Amino acid sequence: MSSTAGLVIPCKAAVAWEAGKPLVIEQVEVAPPQALEVRIKIKYTSLCHTDLYFWEAKGQTPLFPRIFGHEAAGIVESVGEGISDLKVGDHVLPVFTGECGECRHCQSEESNMCDLLRINTDRGVMISDGKSRFSIDGVPINHFLGTSTFSEYTVVHRGCLAKLNPLAPLDKVCVLSCGISTGLGATLNVAKPKKGSSVAVFGLGAVGLAAAEGARIAGASRIIGVIAEMTNGGVDRSVECTGHIDAMIAAFECVHDGWGVAVLVGVPNKEAVFMTKPINVLNERTLKGTFFGNYKPRTDLPSVVEMYMNKKLELDKFITHRLPFSDINKAFELMLKGQGLRCIINMEE
Amino acid sequence: MSSTAGLVIPCKAAVAWEAGKPLVIEQVEVAPPQALEVRIKIKYTSLCHTDLYFWEAKGQTPLFPRIFGHEAAGIVESVGEGISDLKVGDHVLPVFTGECGECRHCQSEESNMCDLLRINTDRGVMISDGKSRFSIDGVPINHFLGTSTFSEYTVVHRGCLAKLNPLAPLDKVCVLSCGISTGLGATLNVAKPKKGSSVAVFGLGAVGLAAAEGARIAGASRIIGVIAEMTNGGVDRSVECTGHIDAMIAAFECVHDGWGVAVLVGVPNKEAVFMTKPINVLNERTLKGTFFGNYKPRTDLPSVVEMYMNKKLELDKFITHRLPFSDINKAFELMLKGQGLRCIINMEE
Repeated sequence: MSSTAGLVIPCKAAVAWEAGKPLVIEQVEVAPPQALEVRIKIKYTSLCHTDLYFWEAKGQTPLFPRIFGHEAAGIVESVGEGISDLKVGDHVLPVFTGECGECRHCQSEESNMCDLLRINTDRGVMISDGKSRFSIDGVPINHFLGTSTFSEYTVVHRGCLAKLNPLAPLDKVCVLSCGISTGLGATLNVAKPKKGSSVAVFGLGAVGLAAAEGARIAGASRIIGVIAEMTNGGVDRSVECTGHIDAMIAAFECVHDGWGVAVLVGVPNKEAVFMTKPINVLNERTLKGTFFGNYKPRTDLPSVVEMYMNKKLELDKFITHRLPFSDINKAFELMLKGQGLRCIINMEE
Repeated sequence: MSSTAGLVIPCKAAVAWEAGKPLVIEQVEVAPPQALEVRIKIKYTSLCHTDLYFWEAKGQTPLFPRIFGHEAAGIVESVGEGISDLKVGDHVLPVFTGECGECRHCQSEESNMCDLLRINTDRGVMISDGKSRFSIDGVPINHFLGTSTFSEYTVVHRGCLAKLNPLAPLDKVCVLSCGISTGLGATLNVAKPKKGSSVAVFGLGAVGLAAAEGARIAGASRIIGVIAEMTNGGVDRSVECTGHIDAMIAAFECVHDGWGVAVLVGVPNKEAVFMTKPINVLNERTLKGTFFGNYKPRTDLPSVVEMYMNKKLELDKFITHRLPFSDINKAFELMLKGQGLRCIINMEE
């Protein structure tokens, strides 16, 4: 038992009060975890485009005030009732999507799209009681993606936590809780290139570069940009990480007939329509989509961490910046300008 | 050696002189097979919609006079140079698409779309010398799909012949050389339903019913018509055998998120465009196309015949009519009216 178990914890959090306005580091109160919930101390967080997208609130219903953040690593401070497989001091990755372990998706070998804990960007509360665990002077502050990692302490549903090898460096593996795993899994779990395959990657941000890292790990012979004419009838696999509809269509049409597989990762705007001639499909091409690289967060993420620990997966090259928590708005500026890939925010600096 | 080896064989063939006009049983001359070719005596042939489509010549450049027919079974009469794995008397299925054994597609475990012998509906000659083996009074008659089975004797490239178990009844297994294998393979080789899966089949002609037969063999728990609302979030697999673009889109959108796989078999008109919202793909649905059920004709068809011989695959229910060769035009009438599934034409009656 930690000395704070069962108590409200006052701590610092970066609160977004309005769309697009700089976050403000505030003193917030974090309530104890309820049944099947875990309170964790965030050690490192990073920033992902999804944080930026919902902070700007250009394409969806705004929900403020809110504590953003979903790519992070932390340590269990206390657990609620009904939790037997996590204890105080365990190292964990909070994940924006979960794994209840019991629904048809969790039971399926193929899906990671849990019915209970699937990503929900509109929800600002915990699912058990429909309330927030964050407040300032009694006024509730909204959660984001069930993680809200821009806070020294946060409360997360047990189904959204992957338990880590305690030797894994938290300032590195924190990036595995979203973008890097998404791109890596799109290649390794869905595109599944054979050794010696050619792989085209559309989009060269962190997700696309992680897809390319997956191709490297799989032993691809060529990892290339685009363009069917370059590739003698098409590539064996393509992975689309831009979310632009034209790139999605090109990614499909550039794979080889007979065996080519295109995997869509990037999320386009709501009006976009995927269009192609049926003969492109009939000639034995395959089109697949993936969500979080088809990784089940609790079951599969520990093995991704092991890939890093075994030096099979390279992570350091994705980490281009580091900042203290007090400078979190600078991380937003870097991403808005498209500078760098991942900025690690140290919660204790 | 047969007594006719090396000689021109005069025999009866059903010749299409003009688009949409009744075939005429004529005396034709069939030249001996050239290198890598085989001359076969057709014992039984059936009729497939592809014969009807090119005989009507509504959607493509007409090529007449021509001998149609591509679903058949026969016996080797003589072989050309360079053939070591087929001999006089062997039972064979001629197939409208081939397997050279050497191109990238034939070398791939996944593809059956041979670069050399892939289906070519515009070609009316043999690929070795660009000439026809059929003639009437010295005037060449066009081949169709490299098979032209509406003739007592025909010449076929060795790569388009599957060697049969000599015990297999030719009047039954002849239907495996096109439609039945196409539907069966679409389910067993491409959709790959697990035991207990639900499978939707679009189109209930011979190909669609063969897709349903594949689902039965795979142990599907439900084999149904359409309609996502019926199926608790969607079916596990769907197989589209109509070729109507709306059905193709519905077949994709009715599969379950997380693991659903839709397989397109039917060929739409050239103007059709497949359109869907990208989120339908991103939610872990898979869209695949197949050609001839992904069966490699030489390598894989013998095992399909064995499925029939072992009573795993039921064929008899697909054979709804039988006619003598002299009545071949009645088989065209039955198909034009949509009556029955497969009509077996006995070449010796």
